[in-house]
Amino acid sequence: MRIDGRTNNQLRPIQFIRHYTKHAEGSVLVCFGDTKVLCTASIEAGVPRWLKGQGKGWLTAEYGMLPRATGTRTQREAARGKQSGRTQEIQRLIGRSLRAMLDLSKLGENTIYIDCDVIQADGGTRTASISGAAVALIDALECLQRDKKLSQDPLTGLVAAVSVGIKNSEALLDLNYAEDSTCDTDLNVVMTQAGGFIEIQGTAEDKSFSRQQADAMLSLAEAGIAEIITAQKQALGW
Amino acid sequence: MRIDGRTNNQLRPIQFIRHYTKHAEGSVLVCFGDTKVLCTASIEAGVPRWLKGQGKGWLTAEYGMLPRATGTRTQREAARGKQSGRTQEIQRLIGRSLRAMLDLSKLGENTIYIDCDVIQADGGTRTASISGAAVALIDALECLQRDKKLSQDPLTGLVAAVSVGIKNSEALLDLNYAEDSTCDTDLNVVMTQAGGFIEIQGTAEDKSFSRQQADAMLSLAEAGIAEIITAQKQALGW
Amino acid sequence: MRIDGRTNNQLRPIQFIRHYTKHAEGSVLVCFGDTKVLCTASIEAGVPRWLKGQGKGWLTAEYGMLPRATGTRTQREAARGKQSGRTQEIQRLIGRSLRAMLDLSKLGENTIYIDCDVIQADGGTRTASISGAAVALIDALECLQRDKKLSQDPLTGLVAAVSVGIKNSEALLDLNYAEDSTCDTDLNVVMTQAGGFIEIQGTAEDKSFSRQQADAMLSLAEAGIAEIITAQKQALGW
Amino acid sequence: MRIDGRTNNQLRPIQFIRHYTKHAEGSVLVCFGDTKVLCTASIEAGVPRWLKGQGKGWLTAEYGMLPRATGTRTQREAARGKQSGRTQEIQRLIGRSLRAMLDLSKLGENTIYIDCDVIQADGGTRTASISGAAVALIDALECLQRDKKLSQDPLTGLVAAVSVGIKNSEALLDLNYAEDSTCDTDLNVVMTQAGGFIEIQGTAEDKSFSRQQADAMLSLAEAGIAEIITAQKQALGW
Amino acid sequence: MRIDGRTNNQLRPIQFIRHYTKHAEGSVLVCFGDTKVLCTASIEAGVPRWLKGQGKGWLTAEYGMLPRATGTRTQREAARGKQSGRTQEIQRLIGRSLRAMLDLSKLGENTIYIDCDVIQADGGTRTASISGAAVALIDALECLQRDKKLSQDPLTGLVAAVSVGIKNSEALLDLNYAEDSTCDTDLNVVMTQAGGFIEIQGTAEDKSFSRQQADAMLSLAEAGIAEIITAQKQALGW
Amino acid sequence: MRIDGRTNNQLRPIQFIRHYTKHAEGSVLVCFGDTKVLCTASIEAGVPRWLKGQGKGWLTAEYGMLPRATGTRTQREAARGKQSGRTQEIQRLIGRSLRAMLDLSKLGENTIYIDCDVIQADGGTRTASISGAAVALIDALECLQRDKKLSQDPLTGLVAAVSVGIKNSEALLDLNYAEDSTCDTDLNVVMTQAGGFIEIQGTAEDKSFSRQQADAMLSLAEAGIAEIITAQKQALGW
Repeated sequence: MRIDGRTNNQLRPIQFIRHYTKHAEGSVLVCFGDTKVLCTASIEAGVPRWLKGQGKGWLTAEYGMLPRATGTRTQREAARGKQSGRTQEIQRLIGRSLRAMLDLSKLGENTIYIDCDVIQADGGTRTASISGAAVALIDALECLQRDKKLSQDPLTGLVAAVSVGIKNSEALLDLNYAEDSTCDTDLNVVMTQAGGFIEIQGTAEDKSFSRQQADAMLSLAEAGIAEIITAQKQALGW
Repeated sequence: MRIDGRTNNQLRPIQFIRHYTKHAEGSVLVCFGDTKVLCTASIEAGVPRWLKGQGKGWLTAEYGMLPRATGTRTQREAARGKQSGRTQEIQRLIGRSLRAMLDLSKLGENTIYIDCDVIQADGGTRTASISGAAVALIDALECLQRDKKLSQDPLTGLVAAVSVGIKNSEALLDLNYAEDSTCDTDLNVVMTQAGGFIEIQGTAEDKSFSRQQADAMLSLAEAGIAEIITAQKQALGW
Repeated sequence: MRIDGRTNNQLRPIQFIRHYTKHAEGSVLVCFGDTKVLCTASIEAGVPRWLKGQGKGWLTAEYGMLPRATGTRTQREAARGKQSGRTQEIQRLIGRSLRAMLDLSKLGENTIYIDCDVIQADGGTRTASISGAAVALIDALECLQRDKKLSQDPLTGLVAAVSVGIKNSEALLDLNYAEDSTCDTDLNVVMTQAGGFIEIQGTAEDKSFSRQQADAMLSLAEAGIAEIITAQKQALGW
Repeated sequence: MRIDGRTNNQLRPIQFIRHYTKHAEGSVLVCFGDTKVLCTASIEAGVPRWLKGQGKGWLTAEYGMLPRATGTRTQREAARGKQSGRTQEIQRLIGRSLRAMLDLSKLGENTIYIDCDVIQADGGTRTASISGAAVALIDALECLQRDKKLSQDPLTGLVAAVSVGIKNSEALLDLNYAEDSTCDTDLNVVMTQAGGFIEIQGTAEDKSFSRQQADAMLSLAEAGIAEIITAQKQALGW
Repeated sequence: MRIDGRTNNQLRPIQFIRHYTKHAEGSVLVCFGDTKVLCTASIEAGVPRWLKGQGKGWLTAEYGMLPRATGTRTQREAARGKQSGRTQEIQRLIGRSLRAMLDLSKLGENTIYIDCDVIQADGGTRTASISGAAVALIDALECLQRDKKLSQDPLTGLVAAVSVGIKNSEALLDLNYAEDSTCDTDLNVVMTQAGGFIEIQGTAEDKSFSRQQADAMLSLAEAGIAEIITAQKQALGW
Repeated sequence: MRIDGRTNNQLRPIQFIRHYTKHAEGSVLVCFGDTKVLCTASIEAGVPRWLKGQGKGWLTAEYGMLPRATGTRTQREAARGKQSGRTQEIQRLIGRSLRAMLDLSKLGENTIYIDCDVIQADGGTRTASISGAAVALIDALECLQRDKKLSQDPLTGLVAAVSVGIKNSEALLDLNYAEDSTCDTDLNVVMTQAGGFIEIQGTAEDKSFSRQQADAMLSLAEAGIAEIITAQKQALGW
């Protein structure tokens, strides 16, 4: 039994609260247990310079943590004057993952900004961000459609993400902070609604992991992501 | 009658939700109408270098806006690599105002970090931040007391803040965004529980204001702040 | 009697030396006692991107202190790689105050840069900057007129500024550094030639101030600013 | 057959030129085909502040590309004033991978800096960097031993890395730039000499990949890394 | 005859106004014609970290231009967030030149900061800065001596600097801006009171210069610097 | 006899390895003894904004050192977030020197980027950079000619550079690091193929130098540069 009473293949309680704030085209507060991330999707006409004139759209993502989202206060990146390597790594991952939901050539010359801001952190903030931002993106696309700004449907399907790990030689689904900081391996997996892999990022924290352990983690992730996608659909009323 | 149906001397609905997040010593979501700010107070042992060895404490504040707290997306300051002049001006104001709640010589060599992060903006974010952070600071001081880290009580009393303005020659209390962006003058006032002034910051946006108008605004602010302090006390169970 | 022998309502000796440097369209060395600020007004054709095509002009201000304008050397902001919060707060104040002298819609697509650089500091550098820059701005506008670059007169009148404070419960006009660093409250006031208020910025340094004290300070400021405007007019030969 | 005539499971010609420069404790020019990276390992007494007094060592890595290592010139990061997200992502990966070669508790309070600078890029610079830096690290450890600065052997074994990908539904080993920029999926794998996984980082560039494809890529990587480790040993005379 | 009526070997009118501002230990406004630079020398106890505990002192220099010291406004370096390459080149030159006036081992663990801020520019700002800062440094050393902070005299003598150039194949002394921007070669020379060379920095702007021209410029500089040193001595009452 | 057995007027072994990397239009590894610098010349269509529409070209240079090019590791400038004053000084020198090889009005609206990256440092990296970049520039110009992008020949001739110094009152040619760090004076000289001077930069490190010493150094540099130009021609097959 795990710290919080879950079985090895059990997700934390998951919640998607849509329309959490009023200005953004898509605004979702996603909760994976005590991890809470506000994910917004904002639409702006126009695309970055390198994409102009091609009739295609773009999606980019940014990630941040409120200074006291964590157990001890983290220095504010705006005050430090730069984003950490970790932040950049995560926001690049979110961007790549969310772009997998779209056929950008059908988006018109629009840019979608995904902002994932961690209100409270308890492990798995990057995978919660991806899963929540996917729902916010759907809401933003509906805005575009309602405003007649799309002639084709750019959506190719949902994506969702989860973390898995190896602790004491056992594979665990959806690590919370206490598990994440003591496990041997941490693997983040992003998949499409259709069951394809978008990203696999695994890191041995202390000792290397075997091919079987890799297999066990991937299987656990596949099952977990299927559940998350079900929850996303429910939230969306699909 | 005002845009949202209020009378000139009426505050928006005010709410202080304590313990909004779980890690911070003090954590308050403050709502002034649609303006929502998460205010946390974090305690760290030690003081800045220039204060070491004097047995005194320190309090400093930082302010931020989530990129899509606003009607159109604002660029993330962490990504731009610096805080705007507006942000710095506001966080310096918050810091000065909150320090007025404390006798720092009774705080011991502890530093309190106030973080005010705007989740949703609809005018008056700086005055909501001060009013909410005051409550979070009280909660953080109680943590210090519970942990026996204080030998004296550093608290001198609450502070609260409100904006007032002149629109069409009439003084209005607690401007929302629509009012703020069209009024002639915007005055932010910070006061103590005992009725003393801490800060007065008034700016004529388009045309100058008269001495009578200044007087009218100050009177309106005095009454409004008294109400806010009552709401703070209620939230604190005082 | 005050440290330097003045009465409570007495300004320091004030001087405006026009044409202090030869390149700028307006160049004024302003002295408020030992506080000496070089204020220049520079004209450039064109406006910032967000204002283009509207036929309107713009005015923006920057403020700096020479490293050894102060009693102990201050680190050079260019070497630190950023302007302090204090600097940004001050230059935003100067910009807002000086824009109150102009009807920007009559300026044509020109930008006026105000630069206030403190050569020697003895308290009140921001209010001296505003008062001196107002004179430099008049000289720069005359250059525009002489060069036939204006079809209408954008000038709406002079502005001037002064600091007032409370020390030992008495209101004092035009604080020098020794007074400024020991007073209880510091209030900066900016007014127009016509007697309207542009900015009021008051901060309780140590203990809060009462409504009566606020009133006393405002009255003192009104009288002081009237004297400064007289001195500006004399310097301009009006 | 592939662009450059290789079979799907064939590495490019691999070369490790030790002692490539004279100052560094370890200095290896690694070539994977036309990809050439200079990897140095530098030893400095002392550890970062957060590790002081624990008797342990540290290893950190930095990565850079000469501006014209690439087909078109890339802006110099030192001139831009910051490292890109891609650079930070890569150097964090290199650091984590190389730390897996060491038992840091046996290194003493020494820090090893790994610098990987790409002289010429043709795909797979991060995996070549890891493989080359592993050899440089061995040379640096020998310096420490020769200088009697180690009481225990911190080395736990070699690591090596390779990229694999899916192109036209076939798994390919060790992608060059032309393959990398046109393939559907790109997976970077880091393994130990003992056959354990350290890192798996896979990204679907355009379309998602299946579980079978993931399996095929991992198998290809296992075989490829075994060959690279053989080449490392040869270069080291093991 | 030159633009301003001087002969080829004639300096512009030179002036050293000591005690120009009141806070700095040494404060000199130096004028070379219309070039006016405020040079201050500030003393701080202590030395940079890399020099601690050696009983030696240090001298470092910074240089800046007020934004409107020039014919068209230059962007403020503090606002840009960095010093230009030109600024850094100049302040490094000033520092090296002024250190040549001192035996740092006799200065005690004190640091002298030289600040050269150009109030008005008309060519030769770096050489005026060096010549003026030399006088400010003497005044600062006297402060140290008056305060009994020196047990030995660290002064080894004055330095001074001048620019020379080639225009229409003729060597000219002390170029003003109009000459500087149209000449073929610009050479800056720094010498000691004893007639030794400290720095020679010559740049062919458009066409290269011959060995004879180099010789002619050096001779012109030697004579000019001797005159400047005479003026420095006069200003110092030596 | 010198440390490495050379006579006072003897260069170190000099080598120019052309086509050292495959992507750049010009790519030369230059070796002056143990100093090794990779010099590339990259061509891009277009010119900086301030030069647009004049039909002229531009050349600019950047300089860097690999962190472990030196005896002890130097912090990576990209990680520090800015280039040092020394780096900027050197790259400005390289740019000015290389522009002396070209009649920019005959280059068309093209920009040539010179990148000099020090692989291994042993004194004289800036003069080696200039001498090597000159050869790379010739190769890049040939690319332009081969691609029919030039209607006129912009080349005016080669430049080369060398350092000279005074040690124990003797003038030495081409200082290595050990000599450079112990000599009294260090002079860098850049000359054209036709024997004209482009740059002279001399600095007295510890004691000033006399006019005779300046003359002796210049003569030594003239002879050394003639030899280097002969070596450049040989490498180019001229």
